[in-house]
Amino acid sequence: MYPYSAPLNEMRFLLDKVFKAPAIWQRLPQLAETVDLDTAMAILEEAAKLNRDIVQPINRAGDEQGVRFEDGTVITPDGYKEAYQAFMEGGWVGFCGDPEFGGMGMPKMLGVLVDEMGYSVCNAFNLYSSLTAGAALALNAHGSDELKDLYLPKLYSGEWAGAMDMTEPQAGSDLRGVRTRAEPRDDGSFLISGSKIFITGGDQDLTSNVVHLVLAKLVGSQSLSLFLVPKLKVNDDGSLGENNGVSVGSIEHKMGLKGSATCVMNFDNARGFLIGEADRGLACMFTMMNYERLAIGIQGLGSAQAASQMATDYAKERLQGLAATGSTAAADPILVHGDVRRMLLTIRSLTEAGRALAVDAGMQLDLAKFSEDEAERAKAARFVGLLTPVAKAFLTDRGLDACIMAQQVFGGAGYIRETGIEQFVRDTRIAQIYEGTNGIQAIDFLGRKVTGDNLATLNEFIAELKTELAALAPEWQDKAGELLALLDELIASAGKINDAKREQPALINSVAVDYLDAFGFSLYGYYWIKMAALAQEEADESFAQQKAAFCRFYLEKLLPRARWHLSQVNAGAGCIMEPGTELF
Amino acid sequence: MYPYSAPLNEMRFLLDKVFKAPAIWQRLPQLAETVDLDTAMAILEEAAKLNRDIVQPINRAGDEQGVRFEDGTVITPDGYKEAYQAFMEGGWVGFCGDPEFGGMGMPKMLGVLVDEMGYSVCNAFNLYSSLTAGAALALNAHGSDELKDLYLPKLYSGEWAGAMDMTEPQAGSDLRGVRTRAEPRDDGSFLISGSKIFITGGDQDLTSNVVHLVLAKLVGSQSLSLFLVPKLKVNDDGSLGENNGVSVGSIEHKMGLKGSATCVMNFDNARGFLIGEADRGLACMFTMMNYERLAIGIQGLGSAQAASQMATDYAKERLQGLAATGSTAAADPILVHGDVRRMLLTIRSLTEAGRALAVDAGMQLDLAKFSEDEAERAKAARFVGLLTPVAKAFLTDRGLDACIMAQQVFGGAGYIRETGIEQFVRDTRIAQIYEGTNGIQAIDFLGRKVTGDNLATLNEFIAELKTELAALAPEWQDKAGELLALLDELIASAGKINDAKREQPALINSVAVDYLDAFGFSLYGYYWIKMAALAQEEADESFAQQKAAFCRFYLEKLLPRARWHLSQVNAGAGCIMEPGTELF
Repeated sequence: MYPYSAPLNEMRFLLDKVFKAPAIWQRLPQLAETVDLDTAMAILEEAAKLNRDIVQPINRAGDEQGVRFEDGTVITPDGYKEAYQAFMEGGWVGFCGDPEFGGMGMPKMLGVLVDEMGYSVCNAFNLYSSLTAGAALALNAHGSDELKDLYLPKLYSGEWAGAMDMTEPQAGSDLRGVRTRAEPRDDGSFLISGSKIFITGGDQDLTSNVVHLVLAKLVGSQSLSLFLVPKLKVNDDGSLGENNGVSVGSIEHKMGLKGSATCVMNFDNARGFLIGEADRGLACMFTMMNYERLAIGIQGLGSAQAASQMATDYAKERLQGLAATGSTAAADPILVHGDVRRMLLTIRSLTEAGRALAVDAGMQLDLAKFSEDEAERAKAARFVGLLTPVAKAFLTDRGLDACIMAQQVFGGAGYIRETGIEQFVRDTRIAQIYEGTNGIQAIDFLGRKVTGDNLATLNEFIAELKTELAALAPEWQDKAGELLALLDELIASAGKINDAKREQPALINSVAVDYLDAFGFSLYGYYWIKMAALAQEEADESFAQQKAAFCRFYLEKLLPRARWHLSQVNAGAGCIMEPGTELF
Repeated sequence: MYPYSAPLNEMRFLLDKVFKAPAIWQRLPQLAETVDLDTAMAILEEAAKLNRDIVQPINRAGDEQGVRFEDGTVITPDGYKEAYQAFMEGGWVGFCGDPEFGGMGMPKMLGVLVDEMGYSVCNAFNLYSSLTAGAALALNAHGSDELKDLYLPKLYSGEWAGAMDMTEPQAGSDLRGVRTRAEPRDDGSFLISGSKIFITGGDQDLTSNVVHLVLAKLVGSQSLSLFLVPKLKVNDDGSLGENNGVSVGSIEHKMGLKGSATCVMNFDNARGFLIGEADRGLACMFTMMNYERLAIGIQGLGSAQAASQMATDYAKERLQGLAATGSTAAADPILVHGDVRRMLLTIRSLTEAGRALAVDAGMQLDLAKFSEDEAERAKAARFVGLLTPVAKAFLTDRGLDACIMAQQVFGGAGYIRETGIEQFVRDTRIAQIYEGTNGIQAIDFLGRKVTGDNLATLNEFIAELKTELAALAPEWQDKAGELLALLDELIASAGKINDAKREQPALINSVAVDYLDAFGFSLYGYYWIKMAALAQEEADESFAQQKAAFCRFYLEKLLPRARWHLSQVNAGAGCIMEPGTELF
C-alpha cells in the first residue's frame, strides 16, 4: 500500500462545518473542557502519524505470517507487540472511555475518525483494541462498582484486553441455543463451563490478561446472563493470579484478517462475575454489541478509504492507453478513461458519504450520553438505534464494494498479493458477517427500529433531514427533488409493511435488506447535498468544486439505485416465501 | 465443498427444450454423425463423474499448497499430475477440437457445459486445459499446415499444453506498448526476445512441452505479429529437442487460483514461427481471445453453480432460528428465513440464466462454424461478436456476486477456509480482470458490437428475442411487458449514444459498463421467461413449478435492476468527465 495519508481535511470539514461539532462540544459540560476543534485536529494528526508510521508497516507482513497457535498459546505476527505498545502508550484504547476510571472521555464523533484511520492501515490489528473498548463500555454501563474499580483502569490503559464470547456452534445468529452454564458459588461469584467459537481476540500475546464477557445460562434458567471471566484470576489489589480455567482450543484459518486471532475458547469451571441482572445478559451484551456494530461499520469505512487512496494514486500513476478525447502522449494516466473515473467516483463518493454517516452516528451517541437535556438525550438515543444497524451493514457492504472496485482499477496487479488491495478485500469481507450478519442488521432496522414504534422514529428522523435540507441555499434545495421523493417513498413503503406485518409474518425478513439499502442510498444523497452545499462556503475553491462534482456524480448515478431497492421492497415477500422447500 | 452434483437435468432441459440442440445437430452435416441428445447426456454424465471423483478432491488442498517455483521449475500441487492424466486420457482437452488433427469435433453447446463442470470443482486446474484448447483453436484457424500437423495433435491429446503470452509490464489493456521483438532468420523462422508477465500456465509439470503463442513486434515494425514459440524445440518428427531459450522468471503470489501457475516468461532468442500474416497478430490472437473470453465467462458460471449448490445444501442443513410463520421445532433450517431465501433465489436465478447465456453463445459459435448456409453463418458470427463480451463480463460479475452471497448464507462459517466457499470468492475474482477486464469487455460491446455497425446487430438480435417471445404461450407473453419495454429502451439508449459518440468521444468509455449490465439483466429476463414457459411442457411437475417460481422471482426482484443501469447510461458522461484531474 502507498504511504497512508489520513483525510484530515475531510475530517475537519465534517466536524466543523457539516456537523458543527465545536458548538456541540461547547454546550455539553462534560465535553467543553475536554475538546475543541484545535485539540481535535491535533489529536487526529497524532493518530494519523501513529497509524501511518507504526501500524501500517505491520499490515502486509502480518497477513503473510498470520497468527500462530503453538502449545496452547496464541502468537501474534512480528511487530504486533511493538505496535500495540505504542498504541497503548498513546492512550488510544481508552480514548472514549470514562475519565473516572482513566479513560480520556473523548467524544465518539472524534472516536469514529480515529477508528477509521486504524482500519485504513490494518484491519486485524485494530480489532484487539476495539473489542477492549467495547468490553469496557459494557462493564462501565452494567458492572458493579467493585468490578469497575478493578477492571476498567486496566482495560482503558490497554494493559488488559477485552473479548466478547457469544457464539457457540449451535448458537450463532440465534443465541437461544447457548449451552454454556453458570453455577452460583457461595461468595456471589459463578463457575462458568462451556465452549465458545469465533472469539475475536480470544487470546493473544499483547496483553497480560484477557477479560472475557461471556453469555451463559444460570443453572436452571433458559435465559442468558452476562459474566465477566478473566483469563487469569485477578487478586483484590489488581495483581494477577493463576489461570482461571480459561483456555484456547484452537484458532481458525480464515479468508483474511490473518493477524487477528479468532479463537475457540474453553471455560472449565472458570470463575466469573455477573454483569447486570441475572437473566438480562442479552440487554447488557447489546451495549457492547451496539458499540461494536458501529465500530465494525467503521472497519468497512476504513477499508473503503484505503481502497480509495490506493486506487486514486494508481490511476494517476499508471500509464496505459490514450484519452478518448485525444492525446499526444505515448500513454496517458488511466485516470483519463471514463470507466476508471466512474469507478473512482463511485468509490470516493460512497466513502465520503460513509464518513458523514459515521460522524453522524458518533454525534448521536455523544448527544445521547452527554446532553443535559433529557428530551435531546432521548431523541438522540432513538436516532442511535435507527442508525446503528445502517452504519454496520451499509458501511461494510459499501466497504467491500469499494475494495472490489479499487481492485478492478488495478487490473491484473490488483490480484497480486504484493499490491495490497486484495488483502483489504479479504480482510473487510468478514465485516459483513460478524457482530450480526448484515441480514440480521437489516431485520433489526426494519423490524425493530422502523416499524417497531410504528414509524415514529423514522418520521422524526426524516423530518429532521428535510429541515436540514430546507436550511441550505436555494440552489442546493433544487437538487433535492428526487431525494425528497425517495424519503417520502421510504415512509410510504415502511407504512405498508407496518400494516401488513401481522398478516405476513415473513414480510420483514424478506424485504429488510433491500429496505436498508434503499434507506442507505437515500441517506447518502442527503449527506452529499449537505456536504456540497456547505463546502461552497469554504475558502478552498477546489475543495468546494470537488464536493459539487462528487455530489453531482452521486445524485446522477448512484442515488437512483435506491429505486431498484425500493422496487424490490414493494414487490413484497410472495415470490420469496411461496415456493415450496422442495423447489430449492 | 459438498460432493459436486452436476446439474444434469438443467443441462438436458437447456439443450433439448430451450435451444433445441438435437434439431440443430441433426441438420449440420459435421455434427449429425458426431452427437445426438443421448450421446450428449452420456458425455455430460462422464464429465460429471470425472470432475466429481478426480478433480474436485484436489481443489482445496491445491489452494492450501499452491504452485511452487523451485530452481527455475514450476511444480503444481499434489494430485494435479494424476488428475491431469485422467483428464487427458478422457480426451477432454480436444473435446471441441478439429477431428482432422485428433480433436473430438464436439459442438461448443456441449463444450460450455463440460467447462462449467470443471470450473465448479476447481478453477485453477481447469485453466491448464482451457488455455491449451484456446491455443489450438488459434493455431487451427491461422497456422500453416506444417505447424498444424506438428502441433495440433499433441495439443488436442493434452500431451503438450498451450499458453497465451500477451501482457508486458507496460503493455496490459493497451498492447501497443509491447516490446518483445522478433528477428527473422533465413529459414523463415524468427528469434523471439523479450519478457511477458501474468502468463497463465506459462509453465507446469503436467505436460512435456508448452506451446506459447507470443505477441511480438517484427524488427522494424510497430505492429504486432503472433508467433508460436515452444518451450522445448520440436524436431520434424515431433520428438522433443533442447530448450528453446524459454524460461520462467518467477511466479506470482495471488489472491486465489493458487494451483494455477501465473508466470513471468522470458524469451531469449527463442525460435518462433509466424502464425497468420506478419503485422496481423492481434487479429489472430483474437481468435484465441474470443474463445478464452467465453471460457472465462464459464469460469464465473461454474463458480456460481458451485456457490449455488453449497449455499442451498447448507441452508437446508443448518438449524438456526425459527420460521417467522411459526414453528414447533427447537430450530428450523435457515431455508425458512426470507432473507436466506432471497439470497438463494438471487444466486440460483442468476446462475440458471447464466447457463442459458453460455449455451446460447455456444450455439451461435456452432452455427457460425458448422452451418452450410452462408447467411446463417454470418448472422451467427455477428451474434457471437455481440454475446462474447457479455458472456465474459456478465457471467463473471454475477459469478462473484453469487459466491459472495453464498458466503453470506454460511454466516461466520463462510469466512473459514475449511468451508470452501471463500476459495471460490478468491478464485473467481480474477475472472473479472483477466482476458480483458470487464471494463474493456463493455467498451468492446458498446463501442464495437452495438454502435460499431450503427445498431444493426443489436436490432437484429433484439428482433429475434421478440420473435421468440411471441412464439410462447400467451400467459407467458403477458409477463414480458416490462422486458419488452427494456429491450426498446436498450435500443433507444444505444441510438442516442451512437448519435453522440463523435461529439463526445469519452461517452462510450464512461457508460459502457452500465450499458452492458442493463443489457445483461434484460437478457436474463428473456431467458427466464423462455425457460419458464417451455418448462411447463415438461412431465416433471416440480421442475415446471421451480422454473415458474424462479422466473417470477427474477422478474419481480432482479429485472428492475436493469432500469438503474439504464438510468446511469442515460445520465451520460458529463458528471464523469467534467471534473478536472486536480479534483481526484
